[in-house]
Amino acid sequence: MNFEKLISIEQMEAATNSLLETGAKVGADSWQQRVENQTPHCKFGEQGICCRICSMGPCRITPKSPRGICGCDAHGIVARNYLRFTAGGSATHSDHGRSIAHTLYQASADGAYQVKDPDKLLKIAGEWGIKTEGRDIYDVAHEVAETGLMEYGKPFGNLRFLDRAPKHTQELWDKAGIAPRAIDREVSQALHMTHMGCSSLPEALIKHSLRAGLSDGWGGSMMGTEFSDVLFGTPKPIDTQANLGVMEKDMVNIIVHGHDPSLSEMIVFYAQDPEMIALAKANGAKGINIAGVCCTSNEVAMRHGIPMAGNFLQQENVVLTGACEAIVVDVQCIFPALGPLSKCFHTKFITTSPIARMPDSDFIEFSDETAAEKAKEIVKLACENFKNRNPDLVNIPDLKANARVGYSVEAIKKCLDGVTNSHVDELGTMMPLVDAVKSGVIRGAVAMVGCNNPKVRADYSHIELMKKLIENDIIVIVSGCSAQAAAKAGLMDLEAKDCCGEGLRRVCELVGIPPILHMGSCVDISRMMILATDIANDWGINISQIPLVGCAPEWMSEKAVSIGNYVVATGIDTFLGVEPFCEGSEEVIELLRGESGTKQWVEANFTVEKDLDKMCDLMIETIEKKRAALNI
Amino acid sequence: MNFEKLISIEQMEAATNSLLETGAKVGADSWQQRVENQTPHCKFGEQGICCRICSMGPCRITPKSPRGICGCDAHGIVARNYLRFTAGGSATHSDHGRSIAHTLYQASADGAYQVKDPDKLLKIAGEWGIKTEGRDIYDVAHEVAETGLMEYGKPFGNLRFLDRAPKHTQELWDKAGIAPRAIDREVSQALHMTHMGCSSLPEALIKHSLRAGLSDGWGGSMMGTEFSDVLFGTPKPIDTQANLGVMEKDMVNIIVHGHDPSLSEMIVFYAQDPEMIALAKANGAKGINIAGVCCTSNEVAMRHGIPMAGNFLQQENVVLTGACEAIVVDVQCIFPALGPLSKCFHTKFITTSPIARMPDSDFIEFSDETAAEKAKEIVKLACENFKNRNPDLVNIPDLKANARVGYSVEAIKKCLDGVTNSHVDELGTMMPLVDAVKSGVIRGAVAMVGCNNPKVRADYSHIELMKKLIENDIIVIVSGCSAQAAAKAGLMDLEAKDCCGEGLRRVCELVGIPPILHMGSCVDISRMMILATDIANDWGINISQIPLVGCAPEWMSEKAVSIGNYVVATGIDTFLGVEPFCEGSEEVIELLRGESGTKQWVEANFTVEKDLDKMCDLMIETIEKKRAALNI
Repeated sequence: MNFEKLISIEQMEAATNSLLETGAKVGADSWQQRVENQTPHCKFGEQGICCRICSMGPCRITPKSPRGICGCDAHGIVARNYLRFTAGGSATHSDHGRSIAHTLYQASADGAYQVKDPDKLLKIAGEWGIKTEGRDIYDVAHEVAETGLMEYGKPFGNLRFLDRAPKHTQELWDKAGIAPRAIDREVSQALHMTHMGCSSLPEALIKHSLRAGLSDGWGGSMMGTEFSDVLFGTPKPIDTQANLGVMEKDMVNIIVHGHDPSLSEMIVFYAQDPEMIALAKANGAKGINIAGVCCTSNEVAMRHGIPMAGNFLQQENVVLTGACEAIVVDVQCIFPALGPLSKCFHTKFITTSPIARMPDSDFIEFSDETAAEKAKEIVKLACENFKNRNPDLVNIPDLKANARVGYSVEAIKKCLDGVTNSHVDELGTMMPLVDAVKSGVIRGAVAMVGCNNPKVRADYSHIELMKKLIENDIIVIVSGCSAQAAAKAGLMDLEAKDCCGEGLRRVCELVGIPPILHMGSCVDISRMMILATDIANDWGINISQIPLVGCAPEWMSEKAVSIGNYVVATGIDTFLGVEPFCEGSEEVIELLRGESGTKQWVEANFTVEKDLDKMCDLMIETIEKKRAALNI
Repeated sequence: MNFEKLISIEQMEAATNSLLETGAKVGADSWQQRVENQTPHCKFGEQGICCRICSMGPCRITPKSPRGICGCDAHGIVARNYLRFTAGGSATHSDHGRSIAHTLYQASADGAYQVKDPDKLLKIAGEWGIKTEGRDIYDVAHEVAETGLMEYGKPFGNLRFLDRAPKHTQELWDKAGIAPRAIDREVSQALHMTHMGCSSLPEALIKHSLRAGLSDGWGGSMMGTEFSDVLFGTPKPIDTQANLGVMEKDMVNIIVHGHDPSLSEMIVFYAQDPEMIALAKANGAKGINIAGVCCTSNEVAMRHGIPMAGNFLQQENVVLTGACEAIVVDVQCIFPALGPLSKCFHTKFITTSPIARMPDSDFIEFSDETAAEKAKEIVKLACENFKNRNPDLVNIPDLKANARVGYSVEAIKKCLDGVTNSHVDELGTMMPLVDAVKSGVIRGAVAMVGCNNPKVRADYSHIELMKKLIENDIIVIVSGCSAQAAAKAGLMDLEAKDCCGEGLRRVCELVGIPPILHMGSCVDISRMMILATDIANDWGINISQIPLVGCAPEWMSEKAVSIGNYVVATGIDTFLGVEPFCEGSEEVIELLRGESGTKQWVEANFTVEKDLDKMCDLMIETIEKKRAALNI
């Protein structure tokens, strides 16, 4: 295998260290230091056996105090905390979806937001029984948006998108009583169930965790993805670059960071405005360079080829380059540390959402109604800030990899169509991929997702796992910060085929894809659910039978746990590299990881494994077992 | 003053101690022991400076580690925890309201649930612009219910009941940006704002706490109250009894416990069924005795005069009497301890709601559709269990006080009508009360609410504060466990007028009321909001000008914090006897208790005072200051 062309973790870490030296010079704090200060962590919290749900406590479970004051035991406490963690993630992803739905509701032919993918809109309208014939596309858009918004709070019935799942999956959900109703209702019920003196039975709490997760993956997130595609275009393969070297020394660097594309789309648009470029030049720059961090980055990379400066644990790095005129954020995964850090440099830290208000930031409230005006104001502010840059502090690491991104399900099908014999085969199916798996040319697939977490060496797990998987002819589909880890290392370069085993390499060459397929941001894990559904349907098997596993080796946020729940609930065994605060209850561990809980209900479960090699082996083993069960 | 007729705290504690002896005999655990085991509590948790929102942590703030790994400081962490605490309460109360709305949606002329207060239904329909003329009352009921259910998730607009508030109050809410939209949306947004990397600005988080609180008090709780009245009748003054002595040695004792009246109404109904009474007799009992604990108790006491066995911290006591055939629970504030405790006796611990599933219980799922059948099954089970009682363990403390309960706003107005000169005055107003306050016969009012909490001597704060307040001619309106504390002591006996100052005593005699007015369960604090609104409107002043304060001296649950937020947001200064995990941030404390936060936004704030005498003096001082400002 040829891993030498990749950018190594060691190179990335060396770059970070040189940036931290700048930080030390200006008196900046860093996550590396804060991790040291916060270590060791509270064992009660880590094990999930600390309860702060009422003010009789906090209560902690010990051998001498096996129950909280209300009488709840470790199992109830762990399960309640797990459900609340899930609810936090589900609410957050889903609120993102709601925000996009509101944007769609505002879309108009002559407004800031337009329908860029009418086909997808009409497809959704068709699924939802919304009349399309002879109607203005914006009338349809508004009715789809309103119907989507009703999914958050409709008094009766289950979520509409559940119908997209294979029949067998839907039956499992019905049988287990976990088919979600209105999205927000599942969140509110999660809080109600975990309120003092409500549920303490782990089974009920874990089942509702799956339900709340499903309301995210097959509800809020799926709407977030679909409506984003309608508004901003369904991603298609596009070339871009990744890693800190995408920042430009002589240009105004605007970093977009967060998750919601409504803002970043406008920023990208106005960064191309001749008036703005002239302003940048008037302030001494050669032009305007937009780069991204986190999932906002994934969104604009997938649709416009905007380069990706880094992922979650590199957000401070972009400021530490000394070359960041503005870091413009929307919602989620934004370090409050950016406030004080930006004050050590000329960087403007611009918050824009009422959902994410932070001290030491410039708050420029962004809304669908004022999108254009505010985006322009922000770009202007950044341009004018170029002159305040201190050249002595500028240090842009010379690391940059090519990446081909933009593999929506639609794009994957299109790629597969290219290797189809159009005389005999149906187009637009997963069959070429299924055939490659059946024949063993590809052994299976891993959906690798999730964040960074200082509890594991940043990016190392993502990259090392991917390397080993593709070496073993396992194709990897990725999203979120995992996708960015791959891109930064160079694993999304078409040339990364040389890192693959013989079978996968041939597939990559034939289809013209990198071995790691960038499917989008973290809400876009809903795309993976559709992909799995299409494979199952085209193959004629259940999702749980596909040689496919999920993996979040460096996950960090509540959203990741919500995702984990819906991925497992969809029938996909999922591997985690960080413990979700459950060690304190063997009952909860059994339900999540054993044979008697989720495995019974939805035919999949979790594995938590901190040893990277073991985790990789276990994933390969699971894939091979599923192959054996299919007699392939 | 004549406090001798009251049942003293010491008598209640002696009774509890004798029950704990039984407990020791059978090897039962108790909250008293668990409190010892759980003391001291974690200081990080108590101060609100422990963050478990993502799996990079848990993080704790210390002088050496002033920020979490993400960079969030103590103020952000405390404010986020406070908002999440509020959201837990708001979701819980509101989900209770939703449940009642679904029951109303199921109501039918010949079903288990009927419309008992059509006037109230028509009034709400009128407020909401729902056509009533010429329609079947159940058609109206179903449309009102569905419209109510839409309040949880409607995509646009604010809550309908906000229009009930005084214009000035509504203006304050609009100006502060805290007028709630759909109820569940505010809950979900609370979780989103507090997700990793979203809001860390205390002002934004505290404002949303008020908004989430308002979505409870002027949303979910208010619907819970109103729809319960429609279904089960609006409470009117009714006589009952309170304290453990209401349990009957020779009868089948069924204890109803929790919050949602849908279940308990049915249990009460079937306990009067001749077939069931015969069954009780066949099993050796003289009949069936229903008594209540917690807010379910308040609901059935207010509407049927069902006696109140105790409040929150007495729930184990009812089992310890050895004379409890069944403790039947719905949702909220139910000790998981009842599971193992019931196993030490013959008691059946019957859980009924999917929201509150507990180990060591018999789960008999209750739903609107199967209400009658399941209620009958439960009563039957209890009757058949009488023969399993161990007479050696039976110990029913001989404590019992008379109480007149049932003071809905409508009932209070009716009482006031009785002292109105019907020739000159308008009926159905608050003016007689306003005049009594203006003249100084009554100095003001305290709304005393909330739970018990072992952090303060159980019931002592409630009762001692009430005694001192009525002695000072301050009328006390109560709900929830505070109401039950009063009732158990005898403060709701009409004779308790003798404990009052001269002015209040005269009012009690004239109007024929006890000095402590039982306004219902904890969702019924919405009644107090309407009461304050009516007083403000009739008087022609703002709510914040009324000589009225709120007080929760022994609060314990998230619901209580949600309540605190909406009471303050409605303009009523509120006094707490237990710290809401905020001590770790002077910024949050200033926003909640100082002059620059809630006081600026909504003209009221919190006071936390653990010294009972000081708290009482501060409340009286606040009332007198408001009087002085009104020149009365």
